[in-house]
Amino acid sequence: MDTLLLVLDLVGTFVFAISGAIAGVKRQLDLFGVLVLSFVAGNFGGITRDVLIGSVPPNAINDWRYLAASLLAGIITFYRSSIIDKLSSPMLIFDAAGLGLFAVAGTQKALTFGLNPVMATLLGMLTGIGGGMVRDILLAEVPTVMRADVYATAALAGSSIVVISPFLHIPSTAATTAGALLCFGLRLMAIRHGWHLPIAQKPKQ
Amino acid sequence: MDTLLLVLDLVGTFVFAISGAIAGVKRQLDLFGVLVLSFVAGNFGGITRDVLIGSVPPNAINDWRYLAASLLAGIITFYRSSIIDKLSSPMLIFDAAGLGLFAVAGTQKALTFGLNPVMATLLGMLTGIGGGMVRDILLAEVPTVMRADVYATAALAGSSIVVISPFLHIPSTAATTAGALLCFGLRLMAIRHGWHLPIAQKPKQ
Amino acid sequence: MDTLLLVLDLVGTFVFAISGAIAGVKRQLDLFGVLVLSFVAGNFGGITRDVLIGSVPPNAINDWRYLAASLLAGIITFYRSSIIDKLSSPMLIFDAAGLGLFAVAGTQKALTFGLNPVMATLLGMLTGIGGGMVRDILLAEVPTVMRADVYATAALAGSSIVVISPFLHIPSTAATTAGALLCFGLRLMAIRHGWHLPIAQKPKQ
Repeated sequence: MDTLLLVLDLVGTFVFAISGAIAGVKRQLDLFGVLVLSFVAGNFGGITRDVLIGSVPPNAINDWRYLAASLLAGIITFYRSSIIDKLSSPMLIFDAAGLGLFAVAGTQKALTFGLNPVMATLLGMLTGIGGGMVRDILLAEVPTVMRADVYATAALAGSSIVVISPFLHIPSTAATTAGALLCFGLRLMAIRHGWHLPIAQKPKQ
Repeated sequence: MDTLLLVLDLVGTFVFAISGAIAGVKRQLDLFGVLVLSFVAGNFGGITRDVLIGSVPPNAINDWRYLAASLLAGIITFYRSSIIDKLSSPMLIFDAAGLGLFAVAGTQKALTFGLNPVMATLLGMLTGIGGGMVRDILLAEVPTVMRADVYATAALAGSSIVVISPFLHIPSTAATTAGALLCFGLRLMAIRHGWHLPIAQKPKQ
Repeated sequence: MDTLLLVLDLVGTFVFAISGAIAGVKRQLDLFGVLVLSFVAGNFGGITRDVLIGSVPPNAINDWRYLAASLLAGIITFYRSSIIDKLSSPMLIFDAAGLGLFAVAGTQKALTFGLNPVMATLLGMLTGIGGGMVRDILLAEVPTVMRADVYATAALAGSSIVVISPFLHIPSTAATTAGALLCFGLRLMAIRHGWHLPIAQKPKQ
């Protein structure tokens, strides 16, 4: 089971890292810049969570496999961006899967470190969306997650399942799986149906 | 006394959160984006201070009331931005009060964690201005505190009182009150009289 | 030896702080904004490293001399930017020296805190480039290190020497010196010969 989780975690890192690399290639950064964005997009959600809950050095800093997955994603994207183009539709699916996995794994870890359920839910969400936010900050853009369709909300829904389950006497493995699937499903539905949250009305000047 | 401090701290969080939400509404972010800005503006100064002094998980992550105050401010601003418009003048006063309170509270906490007086002063200032800085970074803007009138300086003045007081044998409660009032007063005077710091002259090209 | 290291470290902080102050003066920030950029550019690489490896409060927060070096650099640049203009060529040399020193010192510290060699190398690089990255983020710009010539790569090369040396039974002092010199030399060569990394090709729309 732990091996499965690690594999899924690395797949999530890899997919998120590709999103970072694509953003860097579009901006015509050099190879180093693209690799920085890969690493940041793939790992910064988890790093921020770990710093906030006091789990230092963060996993992504301590285990070379996260670095390897990020760099591999960055190098492939840099030299073979045509392959990535063809895969843009599968990418959205992998990204949704990564989001679901990061959200539930982040929530579990926050609970393990003694955070209260509400904050554990938020830190789970942060694990899922943090990497993309810092990627956009490095590109001097307003993070897309702050104005896009249902993305963080899907992560929040998945995380909630994990924190609620103990009160309903649902075993942890089942809750984690259900939470990741709920997030994954909500995200795919949001893409397909164009769901989005209400947008602020421009105040009159 | 502790209850009073908590109430004031939450009021400060609430007021700063409104400043974040207003910025998000102006940029027409979605509801989630507005709430992120509320939380960041209300809490990131304290979170950064706590991470730097090693007090993890930070208060704002561990105590749900800070989250509640931030979300409440964000939701009101999102759905009732006309009310906020009418209150813009009282808001400046609350903001000045929040700045003073965050500055002295941040300084006290840094001293408690064993930092030297100079750095405790700076961390007090950071507690007051950090939330607004990260709010602006998320909006891909140069933080206003870095080019605006007397704002950080007022926080610095208030923090100084707190670190100097032990050498003058002034009791802690009196010093905290005096520091917060000094920051509050300086800030209001700066607004009223248009005080600002010297601005860098454009170097000749 | 320790005194020498401290002096070099403070010189590095001072030089990096000038780079931050120059960026602030160009944007016509006020005095406070310029000083913030000085401190950030001079110290944020080390602060980020210290937070990630769990060495809190970070050195730059705990020791007033780093603050003093940063503020001195900021004030000189603010009031005497003409002097800095004349020194722009020596500045590049000092900056290269600062980069080399920060890279090897950062790597050593990460190793001391038990990080694996690969990550210690990266944290050494981060120590060297982190301050400049946050400086650029505060100015709402894409960090120059992500699209400029050989800069991070030089830091990486210097850091590598430090982590490889124990396997080759090279004494630590020799390796640190060699690493700093390698980074310094590579950086100067890159400036002189206009070396740069491959740049991403614009994907076809």
